[in-house]
Amino acid sequence: MILQFYVDDLIKSALLEDINYIDSTTDLLIDENEISDAYFIAKDDGVISGLDVAIRVFELLDNEVKTTKYFKDGDVVSKGDKIADFMGKTRALLKGERTALNILQHMSGISTYTSHCVELIKGTAASIADTRKTLPGLRALQKYAVMMGGGKNHRYNLSDAAMIKDNHIEAYGSITGAVNALRQKAGHMLKIEVETRNLDELREALQVKADVIMLDNMDCDTMRMAVKINNSQAKLEASGNITMDNIRQVAQTGVDIISLGALTHSVKAFDISMRIDSSK
Amino acid sequence: MILQFYVDDLIKSALLEDINYIDSTTDLLIDENEISDAYFIAKDDGVISGLDVAIRVFELLDNEVKTTKYFKDGDVVSKGDKIADFMGKTRALLKGERTALNILQHMSGISTYTSHCVELIKGTAASIADTRKTLPGLRALQKYAVMMGGGKNHRYNLSDAAMIKDNHIEAYGSITGAVNALRQKAGHMLKIEVETRNLDELREALQVKADVIMLDNMDCDTMRMAVKINNSQAKLEASGNITMDNIRQVAQTGVDIISLGALTHSVKAFDISMRIDSSK
Amino acid sequence: MILQFYVDDLIKSALLEDINYIDSTTDLLIDENEISDAYFIAKDDGVISGLDVAIRVFELLDNEVKTTKYFKDGDVVSKGDKIADFMGKTRALLKGERTALNILQHMSGISTYTSHCVELIKGTAASIADTRKTLPGLRALQKYAVMMGGGKNHRYNLSDAAMIKDNHIEAYGSITGAVNALRQKAGHMLKIEVETRNLDELREALQVKADVIMLDNMDCDTMRMAVKINNSQAKLEASGNITMDNIRQVAQTGVDIISLGALTHSVKAFDISMRIDSSK
Amino acid sequence: MILQFYVDDLIKSALLEDINYIDSTTDLLIDENEISDAYFIAKDDGVISGLDVAIRVFELLDNEVKTTKYFKDGDVVSKGDKIADFMGKTRALLKGERTALNILQHMSGISTYTSHCVELIKGTAASIADTRKTLPGLRALQKYAVMMGGGKNHRYNLSDAAMIKDNHIEAYGSITGAVNALRQKAGHMLKIEVETRNLDELREALQVKADVIMLDNMDCDTMRMAVKINNSQAKLEASGNITMDNIRQVAQTGVDIISLGALTHSVKAFDISMRIDSSK
Amino acid sequence: MILQFYVDDLIKSALLEDINYIDSTTDLLIDENEISDAYFIAKDDGVISGLDVAIRVFELLDNEVKTTKYFKDGDVVSKGDKIADFMGKTRALLKGERTALNILQHMSGISTYTSHCVELIKGTAASIADTRKTLPGLRALQKYAVMMGGGKNHRYNLSDAAMIKDNHIEAYGSITGAVNALRQKAGHMLKIEVETRNLDELREALQVKADVIMLDNMDCDTMRMAVKINNSQAKLEASGNITMDNIRQVAQTGVDIISLGALTHSVKAFDISMRIDSSK
Amino acid sequence: MILQFYVDDLIKSALLEDINYIDSTTDLLIDENEISDAYFIAKDDGVISGLDVAIRVFELLDNEVKTTKYFKDGDVVSKGDKIADFMGKTRALLKGERTALNILQHMSGISTYTSHCVELIKGTAASIADTRKTLPGLRALQKYAVMMGGGKNHRYNLSDAAMIKDNHIEAYGSITGAVNALRQKAGHMLKIEVETRNLDELREALQVKADVIMLDNMDCDTMRMAVKINNSQAKLEASGNITMDNIRQVAQTGVDIISLGALTHSVKAFDISMRIDSSK
Repeated sequence: MILQFYVDDLIKSALLEDINYIDSTTDLLIDENEISDAYFIAKDDGVISGLDVAIRVFELLDNEVKTTKYFKDGDVVSKGDKIADFMGKTRALLKGERTALNILQHMSGISTYTSHCVELIKGTAASIADTRKTLPGLRALQKYAVMMGGGKNHRYNLSDAAMIKDNHIEAYGSITGAVNALRQKAGHMLKIEVETRNLDELREALQVKADVIMLDNMDCDTMRMAVKINNSQAKLEASGNITMDNIRQVAQTGVDIISLGALTHSVKAFDISMRIDSSK
Repeated sequence: MILQFYVDDLIKSALLEDINYIDSTTDLLIDENEISDAYFIAKDDGVISGLDVAIRVFELLDNEVKTTKYFKDGDVVSKGDKIADFMGKTRALLKGERTALNILQHMSGISTYTSHCVELIKGTAASIADTRKTLPGLRALQKYAVMMGGGKNHRYNLSDAAMIKDNHIEAYGSITGAVNALRQKAGHMLKIEVETRNLDELREALQVKADVIMLDNMDCDTMRMAVKINNSQAKLEASGNITMDNIRQVAQTGVDIISLGALTHSVKAFDISMRIDSSK
Repeated sequence: MILQFYVDDLIKSALLEDINYIDSTTDLLIDENEISDAYFIAKDDGVISGLDVAIRVFELLDNEVKTTKYFKDGDVVSKGDKIADFMGKTRALLKGERTALNILQHMSGISTYTSHCVELIKGTAASIADTRKTLPGLRALQKYAVMMGGGKNHRYNLSDAAMIKDNHIEAYGSITGAVNALRQKAGHMLKIEVETRNLDELREALQVKADVIMLDNMDCDTMRMAVKINNSQAKLEASGNITMDNIRQVAQTGVDIISLGALTHSVKAFDISMRIDSSK
Repeated sequence: MILQFYVDDLIKSALLEDINYIDSTTDLLIDENEISDAYFIAKDDGVISGLDVAIRVFELLDNEVKTTKYFKDGDVVSKGDKIADFMGKTRALLKGERTALNILQHMSGISTYTSHCVELIKGTAASIADTRKTLPGLRALQKYAVMMGGGKNHRYNLSDAAMIKDNHIEAYGSITGAVNALRQKAGHMLKIEVETRNLDELREALQVKADVIMLDNMDCDTMRMAVKINNSQAKLEASGNITMDNIRQVAQTGVDIISLGALTHSVKAFDISMRIDSSK
Repeated sequence: MILQFYVDDLIKSALLEDINYIDSTTDLLIDENEISDAYFIAKDDGVISGLDVAIRVFELLDNEVKTTKYFKDGDVVSKGDKIADFMGKTRALLKGERTALNILQHMSGISTYTSHCVELIKGTAASIADTRKTLPGLRALQKYAVMMGGGKNHRYNLSDAAMIKDNHIEAYGSITGAVNALRQKAGHMLKIEVETRNLDELREALQVKADVIMLDNMDCDTMRMAVKINNSQAKLEASGNITMDNIRQVAQTGVDIISLGALTHSVKAFDISMRIDSSK
Repeated sequence: MILQFYVDDLIKSALLEDINYIDSTTDLLIDENEISDAYFIAKDDGVISGLDVAIRVFELLDNEVKTTKYFKDGDVVSKGDKIADFMGKTRALLKGERTALNILQHMSGISTYTSHCVELIKGTAASIADTRKTLPGLRALQKYAVMMGGGKNHRYNLSDAAMIKDNHIEAYGSITGAVNALRQKAGHMLKIEVETRNLDELREALQVKADVIMLDNMDCDTMRMAVKINNSQAKLEASGNITMDNIRQVAQTGVDIISLGALTHSVKAFDISMRIDSSK
């Protein structure tokens, strides 16, 4: 989905960062024509993503590398599963290993964690969404990984949707003032979300027909009330202090979206190894 | 330490990623001359880093922003501490908030976790080191954050030091063969580390005078033996399966370095908030 | 509004394109310390925009240039109006002249034309919007210029809002199928617009609660019917075959938005001159 | 002619601008393996250019796309002519459509307008030339399009030829002084053009053997005199206030070149559509 | 003369290349607030250039560095001359030293060698010119350095002037054919040079009114004849096998230009040292 | 060895610098489908390097060019040897010629000069090393060329190894202080070199177990003493005032490394020509 040359540029930067000019060990010790087999193997259970990106790392280092994929992004893998096979220049496999794994483990870590959250709220009407709490330069890959884990993407950036917060509201004296001002100035393709801290603010946001209303750090009882008051008019987004422990309760309040910064700001790498067999 | 324009370019990319062209909410609702106060506040105890980078985000958006720092990189902060004050254009503060926090929380997360590890091995002769398991485009910041947490930096990239692994050894039939071949071809400023899986390999690496020897996935008894055999000839680096639970025991074996991928590949964001007061 | 360093990079590219290394005439003939006065003068009536960008051209060539602005973006100027004054290095003024004017004339051309369209539909409920028919590399400046002329911005790019066209509909057999599929997969901040060619399609799009419905190449009678059927449920966007001659009639049908590719794909430069007086 | 990777970089920037990360509509609704036919069709009569650039857009999105060209840059097309056929991934065709057309319509607009001007002065000795009044980042493509329309390229940038204007002349007190100074300092491959406002200046420029003399905003009678005085010594370039209405008269004065800013600063897009048939 | 941001980008690339992330020695050993004095000193006699570029290196590392220039580009310096003084952060001085000197020594090497050549032909009508035999990425600086040494710049690139060689002539059967074809297609600001190997070719090139004629590898007698035949019609450029030993004889044949690849392809660094006194 | 896309980017920059948009002579005179044969021929005896880079220039201009290599990097060639054959588009061959040769001649010049130095010290235990005295943007290629000439690479940049100089020593009062401070702060993969000016400093550096000791500008007698004192503990690097005339004597003192700035800062291009036969 993501533009191939966008991905390629990101990989090239990563390789330059990891290699600089040459791989002093590999380039001086391994014959440039030597060919090896290699494979990725899952060391844990989870949902993978970034596999095409990881494979592309090797293609950019050796345009004749052969690969076989046993899974695709979004698939569940189990500990011990072989994920993909490679045959190519030993130098390329050794040089690309770290960069490929760094990306694959990070993205799969996001997808796996997202899928846990999705699983936990199964059967409710809520969906899991990411935030703008991403790492610099990695937003595209991180949001894609969330999607592969079954989550949904919140706005990509500050241009493409509006979120009215305290500071914006203060400038106009009220939610109503701010939303109306924005609606008058903004284009018709811009969704407007309003951040609310209590039910009065919610009511005001509904009155002025906000598209989405964030319920910021509300407890479950309040959110249940909010759902009732809303009566399906706006989309309701729960946000703040949501953990694996309380996420299902939050979902059961009837909110539409649960957004989680942790999906992308506190990622645990998913354990995948690469084995290179140069004994051929 | 890191080149300022390197940091600036990274920030600019992050801002473009987060803003694209305009901040639809802020640019359309907030007057361009409005000024606000703001501050960073710690929501947890830990070691901060990336503060100058986070401050720089606002400077790049408003070259007249005024800042006061109450801490500096590497300092311990406690929950509730005010970290820095800002006064500048409200638009700049709102636009830069997310990018600044994304960086500051990530780097402080690394420094905090590193400092925990350092604390755990206090009193032993070992030091904590990072690895090449970093996120694409973030190696410089991540390694700097490790340093601010009291850890040390392993090699930056594949050009600047050698690590001889299985695949390299196979190509020359033995550790001895590989190290000698490399020593003959490489420059005199290149340190050579050899990855070993058992004490025989360790002995061979010592024989051929490797600068650093990695003890890969060895148990503590074996590492203790390795330390005895080594007798301070090479630097010994413990690696693999090291957790908060066993790190002190590993350090007590007498190894010189304990390297941990998790410092950089599985970072938990350190919780810092930004409060913007535009009520002036 | 647009990020300053985004604008700076665009200007630098434009200057490199126009100058390459040196200005053979100016650098070889004009003393590097010579100072001149200069000014921009309108040669026509219209709405200017891009003035800060044009001024920035000279600042990037001479960081001590002094400027006085007599107008700001979005202002109406009349033939003969002095728009801004400069005092700076003669070399910088001569080198930057063409680049500054190329940008200022293009952007002001867009704002002027947009404002004519806005004027033509005054008193109706419709607003004027741009499209993605922009010139490569210039979308940010072009869309900003539309806004300065009183128009509104349609989506910035294909990520930030959805537009369901024939090809998408075919894939799902019906508008209903496509909209539902998209709603299920997409995030909650994404507005969905459906392109319709007749009133049946409009009805289907309404049924499935599209946020925005494009009335593609419909005649005014059909659009009037559409407005009635819509009954303020979705936003209606008129598009196709709209000219200065029929735009008011289109607006009078009661549609909400009239989008015009010509605002950005067929721009007539607004005539502005720069006079440089190096006789001091 | 233009370097392929220069063109590729421009296309990639344009695609990133138009798509950002994903095409929310297409990537979520269209199967990634679906293949469609498509074609470009002329909606007007004119001269096309930029066809290879437009085709390249799709190749960069789908490296297996198949294309058939029925015309080539510089060819005359008539309303209804099919210009090129495509068969490739539906996603790539939909994602590239807007970017390809934006470029093709702009360049063909330039070629078409240029060819009209060339046609109008047919039979005279004059040729049509462009100027530096181009859009930022698009000079290479715009000047190429002028060439495809039968026009000629004036200098590419300020390094590669000299144009002595008022401000340069003032610095040396006279045309003679300025030209001599420049000739002494500049390299031997630099052509020198002098801007003149009357016949006295023309005579002085001829005296000092300027390579090219611009007749700035002169009326036809004066230009006729200028041609006589010049007697084929220098090239004479007419510039200023030249329109479709008077261009033939200007050409008939006997000047060598007529340069027109409007060729590139006020381009009317040439109407070309893309039809995508995904019904296969 | 060269655009400042062009120079800045080149310096930043050079610093990144030389430093990567940190200066391991300096950043870990020198206090970040320590200030030192430093100066450049000539270790040989010659003509310097690149001084502003070298100074800019330190400004980009420490925006408060103070500098005093005792010479300017193009000036003659003698062994032992202090060229410039600095006072700034010790870290910045140490980090920038190598990059500043690498540039300054290279450029001054070019200017010095050029000035020797210019000196050798003093009193003749010839001038010294560079070629396109420059090092990748350094053409702007190298050509500027030639100018500072008293030489002149040949064309900057293949777009900005024409040079008709064997292969071009073959395509049209004759010099006459090629020149006429080019003149018909090219713009009026393009100078045309023809490469000739004997006097017959020279005559043909004169006949067809080439602007410049290269006398390729001709001996001095032949060149003298060429000068006579030319009779000041075209500019004559001697090229090939010209050394310090025969350059004056070549100049005395009466040719207009002597072009030398060695000015830029075989540069001997001019010896300049930097002394840093951190004893304050 | 060097990353292919790193090399490609460097070539693309060089081509843009040399061509800008079009090759006015070639693109206007040579048919775009014309095919020619061409070859590189050595005009001198030496060691070539950069051949793959030079060949890549043509591949980037014509992806169907056919090449045959008769030598590879590091090979000795003799005057008159044909180095490589090409068959491809005449336009590509003509456009790429200068850029390919500029790179190939520069790199081969370095390899040839390095190999002379290596030859001169044959039979001694010393090896030849480069320095950081490289040209901006060319370090990777220059250091690779040194390696191809039989030399070794000193550190790539300031991050990857430490060199303690006067200014660093002053900050800590002694070599001992500085080395110990650095060892405590730096990672375990960083080699530490100490610059010494006399035998006392050498002894102190040995005492503190520096990995490498530079003997700065010492005479041969002193260096012989240094070798004795060192007794194979550290690596000894001779530096300063070493020329072709005294290099063998320096090597015979028993030092391990002789580093030479001239390998890269004062390169004489190695003479290679390209012949293009478009007569087919």
